[in-house]
Amino acid sequence: MEISLAPTEHLLEWVGARDHEAVVTSLRPFFLPRSVAIIGASAREGSTGGDLFRNILHAGFTGVVYPVNSSATPVAGVRAYSSVDEIEDSIDLAIICTPAQVVLDVVDDALRKGIRAIAVISAGFAEVGVDGQDLQDELLALVRMHGGRLLGPNILGIASAAPRLNATFGAVEPPFGRLALSSQSGALGVALLDAARARGLGVSAFVSVGNTADVSPNDLLEWWEDDETTDLILLYLESFGNPKKFARLARRVARQKPILALKSGRSTSGRRAASSHTAALASSETATAALFHQAGVIRAETFAELLETARLIAGQPLPSGNRVAVVTNAGGLAVICADACESVGLTLPELTEESQQKLRKLLAKEATVRNPIDMLGTATGEVFTEAIRIVLADARVDALIVLSIPMASASTERIVGAIEHVLAEDKPTKPIVPVFAGSAERVFGSLSVSFNFPESAAHAVGHAAKRGQWLRRPLGVVPELDGIDFAAGAAVVDRALARDDDGWLHADDIEQLLGAYGIPFVKQGVAGNLDEAMAIAHEIGYPVVVKAAEAGLHKSDKGLVALGISDDEELAATVERIGLPALLQKQIDGKIELLAGVVEDALFGPLVGLGPGGVFAELIADTTYRIAPITTRDAEELVSTGRTKRLVEGFRGAPPADEAALIDLVLRLSKLAIDRPEIVELDLNPLFALPEGYLPVDARIRVEAVREGPPLKGW
Amino acid sequence: MEISLAPTEHLLEWVGARDHEAVVTSLRPFFLPRSVAIIGASAREGSTGGDLFRNILHAGFTGVVYPVNSSATPVAGVRAYSSVDEIEDSIDLAIICTPAQVVLDVVDDALRKGIRAIAVISAGFAEVGVDGQDLQDELLALVRMHGGRLLGPNILGIASAAPRLNATFGAVEPPFGRLALSSQSGALGVALLDAARARGLGVSAFVSVGNTADVSPNDLLEWWEDDETTDLILLYLESFGNPKKFARLARRVARQKPILALKSGRSTSGRRAASSHTAALASSETATAALFHQAGVIRAETFAELLETARLIAGQPLPSGNRVAVVTNAGGLAVICADACESVGLTLPELTEESQQKLRKLLAKEATVRNPIDMLGTATGEVFTEAIRIVLADARVDALIVLSIPMASASTERIVGAIEHVLAEDKPTKPIVPVFAGSAERVFGSLSVSFNFPESAAHAVGHAAKRGQWLRRPLGVVPELDGIDFAAGAAVVDRALARDDDGWLHADDIEQLLGAYGIPFVKQGVAGNLDEAMAIAHEIGYPVVVKAAEAGLHKSDKGLVALGISDDEELAATVERIGLPALLQKQIDGKIELLAGVVEDALFGPLVGLGPGGVFAELIADTTYRIAPITTRDAEELVSTGRTKRLVEGFRGAPPADEAALIDLVLRLSKLAIDRPEIVELDLNPLFALPEGYLPVDARIRVEAVREGPPLKGW
Repeated sequence: MEISLAPTEHLLEWVGARDHEAVVTSLRPFFLPRSVAIIGASAREGSTGGDLFRNILHAGFTGVVYPVNSSATPVAGVRAYSSVDEIEDSIDLAIICTPAQVVLDVVDDALRKGIRAIAVISAGFAEVGVDGQDLQDELLALVRMHGGRLLGPNILGIASAAPRLNATFGAVEPPFGRLALSSQSGALGVALLDAARARGLGVSAFVSVGNTADVSPNDLLEWWEDDETTDLILLYLESFGNPKKFARLARRVARQKPILALKSGRSTSGRRAASSHTAALASSETATAALFHQAGVIRAETFAELLETARLIAGQPLPSGNRVAVVTNAGGLAVICADACESVGLTLPELTEESQQKLRKLLAKEATVRNPIDMLGTATGEVFTEAIRIVLADARVDALIVLSIPMASASTERIVGAIEHVLAEDKPTKPIVPVFAGSAERVFGSLSVSFNFPESAAHAVGHAAKRGQWLRRPLGVVPELDGIDFAAGAAVVDRALARDDDGWLHADDIEQLLGAYGIPFVKQGVAGNLDEAMAIAHEIGYPVVVKAAEAGLHKSDKGLVALGISDDEELAATVERIGLPALLQKQIDGKIELLAGVVEDALFGPLVGLGPGGVFAELIADTTYRIAPITTRDAEELVSTGRTKRLVEGFRGAPPADEAALIDLVLRLSKLAIDRPEIVELDLNPLFALPEGYLPVDARIRVEAVREGPPLKGW
Repeated sequence: MEISLAPTEHLLEWVGARDHEAVVTSLRPFFLPRSVAIIGASAREGSTGGDLFRNILHAGFTGVVYPVNSSATPVAGVRAYSSVDEIEDSIDLAIICTPAQVVLDVVDDALRKGIRAIAVISAGFAEVGVDGQDLQDELLALVRMHGGRLLGPNILGIASAAPRLNATFGAVEPPFGRLALSSQSGALGVALLDAARARGLGVSAFVSVGNTADVSPNDLLEWWEDDETTDLILLYLESFGNPKKFARLARRVARQKPILALKSGRSTSGRRAASSHTAALASSETATAALFHQAGVIRAETFAELLETARLIAGQPLPSGNRVAVVTNAGGLAVICADACESVGLTLPELTEESQQKLRKLLAKEATVRNPIDMLGTATGEVFTEAIRIVLADARVDALIVLSIPMASASTERIVGAIEHVLAEDKPTKPIVPVFAGSAERVFGSLSVSFNFPESAAHAVGHAAKRGQWLRRPLGVVPELDGIDFAAGAAVVDRALARDDDGWLHADDIEQLLGAYGIPFVKQGVAGNLDEAMAIAHEIGYPVVVKAAEAGLHKSDKGLVALGISDDEELAATVERIGLPALLQKQIDGKIELLAGVVEDALFGPLVGLGPGGVFAELIADTTYRIAPITTRDAEELVSTGRTKRLVEGFRGAPPADEAALIDLVLRLSKLAIDRPEIVELDLNPLFALPEGYLPVDARIRVEAVREGPPLKGW
């Protein structure tokens, strides 16, 4: 077979340029096919294609499915075809299950027949090394040449609820419902489907994306954004192909439909496992955390948490705040639940006096009417109903956890009934989260949500509350900044690049570059001899700090920094001791030392960071990052997160720092990083946060010519 | 009814003095009764006593149970008695289910009949407030007067496997087995029993300890230590009554049988919930963490983790190290599993070249033979068996996680069979931990252990590995320390107490007290005038540091500290500026600032801490604590934990600190804290850790007369 290859770059650009409507249109045959051909559907029991074909029949596909195998041997009692050409009807979707070496041939046949949606189950492509990568590139080029889309290769398959299509070869039949699920691992997909079924959850679609040669989770987000059969999107991710596109899309889609993600590959061996088993490199944890945070993606910590949180968010209203009440017939469990709630940022407020009075009337004298509300083991089903109503009506409560164990006075069925009753009668706008502690069951009555453990309920409510908060807060804007001299900044960078050295900017370059972006720097000068030193000192004014100009990091640890030099005599002695060239700086009477910087991530682009600086920087490494370009909201968060917040509020007697100035600073750093991608490292440390403004007293900036790497994938 | 009360203090002392044999003898009738009377067993459906009686009948108790109610109405077809006196046979155990107000009467009857084991189910005692506490005190005094033991009040009941006794009124029948379970919450007990049953676990005994007026988890530890039907001990704790006794007992028992604990009440609202629902005050989290660590108690973070870890440790050998291999047919799950393993301190080493070669021969060409070992979805049951054998034989592997999803090539049954086969044939000495990912099942074939989620498997293996490590390392000793002048130390404390002020030690007191315990302090002196200042400076030698002597905390932030004063002239100017009295200290050229100290916990006694000091202390609060008296092992751990380790190893160009000297320091602080319980706060901060020795340059010590609080309970 001969393939005329279009230049890869061109094809890849074309993908990047594809607009929303085009993406949705191109994906329709995968989700809503009327006719499907299974190429490589063998009659043999245990063969991938045969299993997949039988799974389609078994799930009751509403369209028509055609088995294709070279000998045209019937499969599961259905007439087979020796090639896709022989099928008289038109086909929407071709699913390829042949060995890797014949995939190009059969895909070519399919494309020639006019099929534009190609899903390749077969393994043996990029995931097995360089040869496989070449084969995959050829396959992709072939599909693109015909204007088709390629799902896979190396996938478990695809399932879609509307046409009842189960085109997967796994042993687990996908339960159908309203969750969309994409998995970068077929195996994890199987496990997720199994676990979803056990919880009474079902999928509107399940897509195993495999090597993501073409169709990626980014594409799927676009499909699911419009798809009316999908309420909520679950993603299992091991890597990103095009995280900037993901960030943009996810931020848009998450305003309409919740996106939950489980992202693995955090640890060294996890990353090793991820990169060896798929064709993608695992991504940096810092950048990933920033990405999810900024895009409003809910990140589950564990497999179980992903499903439990999905179930809560799909089945109950979002809480409008983080205040939780716990109603229970099991005091000890409430203690555990309260601990878990606080650990995820939820609070348990005391109820209003009115609610407490009502509860006192309702409950046994020994009961507790603060929060948690311990009704004791004697509470009946009716008491549950009334207590739930009282607590839901309390204006101090945003969400209610009903935590129970079966007791003689109220069986699990009675408690389920009480909750069902309140849900049906009152249609509450606050979430009611039932926990049937320790129970082996996972589905109770008509309840759409339930938990077996108080901790998992707390974690899920924590995620729901955070999503509520994310939706309520404006996204912020990337503001126009005044006083930026783009040309001056570019000139500094170009000059540094032209030097063709290690790329570290000189002291005067640094000052000019920062100045061009409206970022002040401590007054300073480099002196080559004592006369110059005197002149500089007089210009910037005593007291000054003197540092060895070329000593690298940790100068103060090496005794190469002298503070508080107050006159010419002291300056002469100091320059004598420290040596030349010497860097002289105005001494700043600052107390709060921060670190602000930019670091370039190969995949995610520049990250802007802010954290404790100076001697703190190394011991505690508490810098928070956001992906550039950052918005005003991102900037506010950087200044008010973790230990930075502690410092900025006024630490150990220092007055509070100027938050507005720091917000302006990180926005300017973001702008600089976006304008000048040549900046691969930028570190202002220490940076004195002052009552008015701020002032960096040391800075390191390194530039590199931007290399044209391989163009980004759609994913 | 009249009760002659023995003085409470005397009775309580008697409990403290009870020796192991006496405790075990006194508890026997609770666990191995031949005859039980249920006092307050009503015929009415839904009554606590009636439910409890029926539960006993239903579980097939091997002894005889007698219902007692005032009208002698038969219960569940069994002849009842109007009072315990009327029962002709002797009774080992009385279980009281009457309303609180008649409990004293019926207990008196029972004691007079010679029953020495009294379990009080009834609520309405210390958990409801002051009146209830008084009633409970009376009850306890009554039981003790007769030399009896009291379980409860306010309990769910007790269950014991050997006589098949289920004397609980819960709706969940305890599954019998070899785990002992104590719960400070009845409700949590029910939930744990339910969850245990779902996992195929059973209890040798279940004890709801309620208000722990007398019989406490400490007593139960002593019973279970000897009990041959118990392999492993599970405790749900909300508080401690006598943590020192718990520490001593648990450390002894845990050498023989694993102790797993779930301790709640960490958060503010959790503690509020705990203290309002039981009669005990929740304890400090820092002290609790130290206690469990020192005693070798495995602390589960969640309800589910408690059971999952119990199941692993009960069913499989302990790993002899922290190196884990993962064998899977599901690559994506292995990534998640690897992440979770690293997060709990496990490592995934690469296998030996020999193992890798064998695996390469066995597995498909696309499989991964590093670790995780991804056999791909096509692996059959036979391949599982062989791969498990190869990996178990690898000397680099301490534990094996077999992570699977059901596939056409290997159903769950086949994979279970493969593991069962290896277990039966090879009797491996390393743990094999199967994970059937996402499955709704919890019990598979004859496997004693299995997990549904890779993360829970990793957490359980992490706990098992830590227990193995704890058992392998010697406990350490509390060493004899030389150079301690007990009398001199006592004199300083007595002198300070005699001043009857706020209890803060003066500068010279501090030096003397530390000196008496062989702890050096920076050379210093307090000057009331300039002449004195000069004299002191000459004695200790320039350069000196001058501090305002009475300025309290954060002197340097207020400008009241002057460093590097190098001659008389500078000294005079400085004293002028800072004021008198002035504290002069030898200037130390130290770079590593630590904090060492003692803090008195009302319940746990003194805790000894070590952490980053100086300006770090406030921002990062990374001090690690151990309960005094600390052992050599505790001291070594303090010096080599967290960020202290970072600093001690040599931070930012500083040479490594003298670890032996720091170990000696914390041992001396422990000795001082034990000798002088009047020390309620002791803070050496900063303390310079030097290449040879260490030197505190600031210290704050406060003493208080030891108040005779209420004597400690058995619990």
